[in-house]
Amino acid sequence: MNTQANIHPPQPLYADDSLALHTDKYQINMTQAYWQDGIHERKAVFEVYFRKLPFQNGYAIFAGLERVISYLHDFRFTDSDLVYLREEGYEENFLAYLESLRFTGTVRSMKEGELVFANEPIMCIEAPLAEAQLIETAVLNIINYQTLIATKASRIKQVIGDEISMEFGTRRAQEMDAAIWGTRAAYIAGFEATSNMRAGKVFGIPTAGTHAHAMVQAYRDEYTAFRKYAECHKDCVFLVDTYDTLKSGVPTAIQVAKEFGDRINFKGIRLDSGDLAYLSKEARRMLDEAGFPEAKIYASNDLDEGTIMNLKTQGARIDVWGIGTKLITAYDQPALGAVYKLISIEDEQGNMVDTIKISANPEKISTPGRKKVYRIMNKTNHKSEGDYIALEDENPQNENRLKMFHPVHTFIAKFVTNFEAVELHHTIIENGRLVYQIPTIQEIQSFVLENLNVLWDEYKRLLNPAEYPVNLSQNCWNNKMKLIEEVREKVYQRIQE
Amino acid sequence: MNTQANIHPPQPLYADDSLALHTDKYQINMTQAYWQDGIHERKAVFEVYFRKLPFQNGYAIFAGLERVISYLHDFRFTDSDLVYLREEGYEENFLAYLESLRFTGTVRSMKEGELVFANEPIMCIEAPLAEAQLIETAVLNIINYQTLIATKASRIKQVIGDEISMEFGTRRAQEMDAAIWGTRAAYIAGFEATSNMRAGKVFGIPTAGTHAHAMVQAYRDEYTAFRKYAECHKDCVFLVDTYDTLKSGVPTAIQVAKEFGDRINFKGIRLDSGDLAYLSKEARRMLDEAGFPEAKIYASNDLDEGTIMNLKTQGARIDVWGIGTKLITAYDQPALGAVYKLISIEDEQGNMVDTIKISANPEKISTPGRKKVYRIMNKTNHKSEGDYIALEDENPQNENRLKMFHPVHTFIAKFVTNFEAVELHHTIIENGRLVYQIPTIQEIQSFVLENLNVLWDEYKRLLNPAEYPVNLSQNCWNNKMKLIEEVREKVYQRIQE
Repeated sequence: MNTQANIHPPQPLYADDSLALHTDKYQINMTQAYWQDGIHERKAVFEVYFRKLPFQNGYAIFAGLERVISYLHDFRFTDSDLVYLREEGYEENFLAYLESLRFTGTVRSMKEGELVFANEPIMCIEAPLAEAQLIETAVLNIINYQTLIATKASRIKQVIGDEISMEFGTRRAQEMDAAIWGTRAAYIAGFEATSNMRAGKVFGIPTAGTHAHAMVQAYRDEYTAFRKYAECHKDCVFLVDTYDTLKSGVPTAIQVAKEFGDRINFKGIRLDSGDLAYLSKEARRMLDEAGFPEAKIYASNDLDEGTIMNLKTQGARIDVWGIGTKLITAYDQPALGAVYKLISIEDEQGNMVDTIKISANPEKISTPGRKKVYRIMNKTNHKSEGDYIALEDENPQNENRLKMFHPVHTFIAKFVTNFEAVELHHTIIENGRLVYQIPTIQEIQSFVLENLNVLWDEYKRLLNPAEYPVNLSQNCWNNKMKLIEEVREKVYQRIQE
Repeated sequence: MNTQANIHPPQPLYADDSLALHTDKYQINMTQAYWQDGIHERKAVFEVYFRKLPFQNGYAIFAGLERVISYLHDFRFTDSDLVYLREEGYEENFLAYLESLRFTGTVRSMKEGELVFANEPIMCIEAPLAEAQLIETAVLNIINYQTLIATKASRIKQVIGDEISMEFGTRRAQEMDAAIWGTRAAYIAGFEATSNMRAGKVFGIPTAGTHAHAMVQAYRDEYTAFRKYAECHKDCVFLVDTYDTLKSGVPTAIQVAKEFGDRINFKGIRLDSGDLAYLSKEARRMLDEAGFPEAKIYASNDLDEGTIMNLKTQGARIDVWGIGTKLITAYDQPALGAVYKLISIEDEQGNMVDTIKISANPEKISTPGRKKVYRIMNKTNHKSEGDYIALEDENPQNENRLKMFHPVHTFIAKFVTNFEAVELHHTIIENGRLVYQIPTIQEIQSFVLENLNVLWDEYKRLLNPAEYPVNLSQNCWNNKMKLIEEVREKVYQRIQE
């Protein structure tokens, strides 16, 4: 496309567009205050966690780590970023500081594909205060969306079972990044393919797709359209609902499949509207009678775990499920609320001190202190007994009998013996250096399946799953109570003043 | 961040990453079939429209045009795209064709910020079949999301009224593109500012933000944190809910404001949790009594049009509204279902012939033929009588008395006189050349406000708005009936065979 001299094309995203500015203004303002006060290089520890599982599911699947690594790796303010910040009124010395800023901190994190539950740290970032503060927004933006979609995809995949699941949602995704990172998250959670070619190229996800209604309309005739497709492509799945599925689409697909014989792989037909239960059963009968028992029936049309379960209950004969809108937008709950909380910071004397955020809502009170998360594996049945959050100097493996108690209703408790405490955090970046071998996307997908095997089915059911235990160690709990008491004391003193 | 030699950083999005591959595989497969059959350069006309307004709102606000222009302007398959397609098995001659492909078509479209309703063409793309086919997915991906968010923002802005509205949702957005394009859509619809600095830089949207809980935690003391902020920044809004809003946060904000006096602009306080109605009223009283009647109360915390309306009903004293999750994800309906339908195509003889997509669901039957959309403005009261869709050779302005009838319940009709028929489509790109002066984002925002003024309030109310008339001309309706009849005849003939 040419542009006339007097017409301007849209303002481009700058050639040196960086994600360092993909942050909230308050992060920059706070950083400037830290810098001016000289505390910007104090060591700070932030944790990423969410307070509530999405979709009332019994677990979530962590996704987004690879994108976070990439973001931190590339983190720097570019020339155009600095020009903009100067226009916004930030002062020169501060800009000079930002110009030289790189991420030099340490990231411990669950692996991508790990099962994660409410109120346990997914990722722990230990870095100079300024760096840790500036990256919050982007880290949450990435983890919230990708974890949400991996979890939604896992729910859908559970219902689909051994049949084939494909992600078809790009046109309904919330802009372009969501389309490609969402389909990657779906693949991690067990989906087999995507329609998005860019995701196929960038991530190495298998791609799928044949033709749309437009092709039938372009030839104004199903017979011609199917033939033209078959003349060009060996693998054929014909879309049969442009005019009339059972009276026109399916018979025409069968006719073309017979005419082409071995010259094509007649893989099947796709239904994209109408009563999928009825149409799939009728189409199955027609395909079988025509001698195509191997031809598969593909279905798409606003499907999610609920509609799929219903279709299966009705005996629908669908072999391949194309999932779009409801997956790529996490339609029934389109946001995950992961937060990023400061849990420890270096003081004037260079000692680490724990910090807390109080709230009238008990779930919103953060858990102070540097912590590790362990999955307590029962050595007899190889299932998980729950997750156990301990302060960093504790090791639950040293206990013969581990007391696991509910972090809110503390009188609900159990003792666990004969267990293996598997630490879930891994060092990903250490003092700014990547020290983690990033797995392939196929490895992550396999890892998810392994992880799901250690969960009792009661935690995995779609409706009203049992609550998976996420417990604090006694020391961790005591430390939290101590800080709550300290804050209460401080507020009381203020009232007295 | 350095990377060790034996550790690989994540696979980059290719340096020559392009959006040409941001499409569904079936678009490439269909294109190859067209190309092989030699019909790839036949002129095709596609229309973008949605079938149902989102959020049961009475109107939508079209957004996404600027990004579509940019996408079409840059449309080309890069080297790495072609390498990938080769690996996927597409043949060399076809790849050579794709390599040279640019967008050479014509785009007629509503202007960004135009009010748009169900079942009327927003955008009309007339291009060689292959080009028009390949761009479908990205065009819909862009328009669906941006229009959705502009519409959601408009609903929220209606309730906020003359108070200030700010978009704070980046951390909960569905990945990074959604954050920046969503906040741009919100600004178009009337929001005043964003927290996202990258959006500020790229789009020129005003930015806002002060500090977070983390800063209070970093100093482990509100008094110190507020002072440090005030020492660095002239404009101060203190976040008061880290420990206890009324007992600690507000009194401390007041104390620091008094101590700093004229050295700062004490703009106000921000509430981010708790009972916003109660807290805002109490905080207002405390600020007034302390001699800060000008200090504003900012509020954020999962707000949307429903909660804001409720807060106002309860007499909450909130001056500035920070809107996050519910806006940036369009939480109550996170997808718009705009489609892209072939409505006319060149035949073997070079004549344009109309095409249709049939469905058992009457709303899903497309309206064939090249059309124009007019807004029928009442010259007396300057309000709109509805939209009128006519075939391209018709001009409703030639009628003294325009018959407007419901496109489904055709017996519901009215006659309109003394009207001006304002054409809503503008030529944006003509034969691949940009011929449209792209407005500034501020101009688009003003355009939205002007447009809303021509709508009766009954179409704008949030709950159960009246249905705005979107009518077909008699010729357009007749043409649709004729094509339905032709298809029915064709299906009947197939059954006879």
